[in-house]
Amino acid sequence: MGAVNPVGTVTAATAADRVDRVPKQDRSRATRQRLLEAAVACLAEHGWAGSTVTVVAERAGVSRGAAQHHFPTREDLFTAAVEYVAEERSGALRELFPQGAAGDRRAVVSALVDLYTGPLFRAALHLWVAASNEDQLRPRVTELEARVGRETHRIAVDLLAADETRLGVRETVQGLLDMARGLGLANLLTDDAQRRDRVVTQWAALLDEALG
Amino acid sequence: MGAVNPVGTVTAATAADRVDRVPKQDRSRATRQRLLEAAVACLAEHGWAGSTVTVVAERAGVSRGAAQHHFPTREDLFTAAVEYVAEERSGALRELFPQGAAGDRRAVVSALVDLYTGPLFRAALHLWVAASNEDQLRPRVTELEARVGRETHRIAVDLLAADETRLGVRETVQGLLDMARGLGLANLLTDDAQRRDRVVTQWAALLDEALG
Repeated sequence: MGAVNPVGTVTAATAADRVDRVPKQDRSRATRQRLLEAAVACLAEHGWAGSTVTVVAERAGVSRGAAQHHFPTREDLFTAAVEYVAEERSGALRELFPQGAAGDRRAVVSALVDLYTGPLFRAALHLWVAASNEDQLRPRVTELEARVGRETHRIAVDLLAADETRLGVRETVQGLLDMARGLGLANLLTDDAQRRDRVVTQWAALLDEALG
Repeated sequence: MGAVNPVGTVTAATAADRVDRVPKQDRSRATRQRLLEAAVACLAEHGWAGSTVTVVAERAGVSRGAAQHHFPTREDLFTAAVEYVAEERSGALRELFPQGAAGDRRAVVSALVDLYTGPLFRAALHLWVAASNEDQLRPRVTELEARVGRETHRIAVDLLAADETRLGVRETVQGLLDMARGLGLANLLTDDAQRRDRVVTQWAALLDEALG
């Protein structure tokens, strides 16, 4: 439209090219992120059976082709989605206590348990349950789960100032994370917040004593 | 065939009637039980999406009509199935310690945790996850879960000789059952028996100290 003289045309093309290239990367990253967030929400709300690339693409406002460009398979999309949010949550947990937890173990236990309630846990749970029956999904989800589990354990040990060279301390922290996972499961069908709060208070006290 | 004289005929009919009536009840009970067991196995192996009345009837070797006579809807069949096995497991837990647990809290914790691994937990988990997304299923599963939860808590308090009049004891036992549920979940994708055993040993010791 503005291409009336050759120089103008070239200039416009170069600018357009530059303008176009940078946002393309940004757009691509934004699209990927929208897809991942839509996938988690979809998995949490509709479960594995109701979560297809088409449904997620629609929810994200992205074409099916663009979605498949980012994630060739349904398994790629959903393991990436749960991994993405798991990393976000680990980051958030670290940011809660940027200077360390300063000995407030009740606060750490509460924050750890919070990791296992809400939409991420719900989405992860759907993925685990689906993976237990779907051979294509199982190895990737198992690997992801092991990685997230190790990372969470490291953060927990760190924030609780737990000395793992002492006998039983490793298992004490593991049991705490198992309890957190069980509390997440108990929250699946009903709002279990009040009971959970009392259990957290009690076990934080027991843990504090056990860790010394 | 033996109906050559009226008396004989009547006698035969009465006997046939009697013979027929008792086994009919037995057959009905056996059919119901086969359907419930097939439903649990099916739910554990294939998840909610793969578990229909037709699939379960086929697995149990029962006609679809007979299955629907016992359980008019899919929800009826699956909540009954999980309830049935939950009751079997509660009974089995009580039978493990017919004279009480004689103070062996490690054995009690281990037996409680065992309730949450294996096919029953797996089936229940599929049911919970399905119920979280299916409005028709949710109220019944929530009610069932609350009932099974209360029963398990009562058994645990009893076997652990826990004095719930003492502050925090109720929450200590609840946290233990949450941990057991979380350990069940950790066992979903991989065989977690070795790690679980170490966590059970450690937490049984913490619990023993807490309960006094």
